[in-house]
Amino acid sequence: MKGILETCLYAEKLEAAEEFYGRVLGLVPFAKEEGRHLFFRFGEGVFLIFNPNATAVTGGDVPTHGAHGPGHVAFRIEDDEVDSWRKHLSDLGVEIELELNWPSGGRSLYFRDPAGNSLELATAEVWGIQTKNIPGLS
Amino acid sequence: MKGILETCLYAEKLEAAEEFYGRVLGLVPFAKEEGRHLFFRFGEGVFLIFNPNATAVTGGDVPTHGAHGPGHVAFRIEDDEVDSWRKHLSDLGVEIELELNWPSGGRSLYFRDPAGNSLELATAEVWGIQTKNIPGLS
Repeated sequence: MKGILETCLYAEKLEAAEEFYGRVLGLVPFAKEEGRHLFFRFGEGVFLIFNPNATAVTGGDVPTHGAHGPGHVAFRIEDDEVDSWRKHLSDLGVEIELELNWPSGGRSLYFRDPAGNSLELATAEVWGIQTKNIPGLS
Repeated sequence: MKGILETCLYAEKLEAAEEFYGRVLGLVPFAKEEGRHLFFRFGEGVFLIFNPNATAVTGGDVPTHGAHGPGHVAFRIEDDEVDSWRKHLSDLGVEIELELNWPSGGRSLYFRDPAGNSLELATAEVWGIQTKNIPGLS
């Protein structure tokens, strides 16, 4: 196995999700199906938002799945981007639920998407990952 | 943002999850907290399994989260590994719920973890990603 190819969150209101992820995080879906999913490319993988009420129904082309309640995803940012992200979120009126300077290194900004998922912008140092640049990621 | 840093699934029975992910996928946690989480390193990020009954409780160090019901994660494999993974899963008695040869390219093997999460081993071609090797991922 060479890494994570698909990372998923769930949101029943996909239009609100699309608006939020676009406006706040600059993510534009490369594919979407009304009422079912939004797909975003992300580095060497994809970030998928599904409506659990659609994907939990038997009969689709792939095995059913679909969770309810707040999930969690962290997006990687660089240390010198933390201040600009904090300002960006603040300017957009997105409440920063928590900002952490981890004792062991690294920084995190936590906020919520409209579905209540816990989103995090975090530096790789949070996990002891020091690599500054990863080829192929942008 | 430079990619996904944290990908999460939820499982109430973490001991069963640890046994399964170790035996079937060869993943060994680099950190764990009984009753709360298992953390795995994965390429340039981490794969986290949380007990939603623990992480959904207010009062921790980080914002609450915790979903119920089957989530989904896909792990990236190479095309020449599909046969050996199918055999490996079969040898271990892990039911392959579905195998897909996508019309647009790429192959997927779907199965379940003990918590019912939908796991997928998929080639990057599923998403039109052709890169064979990513520096830094192993």
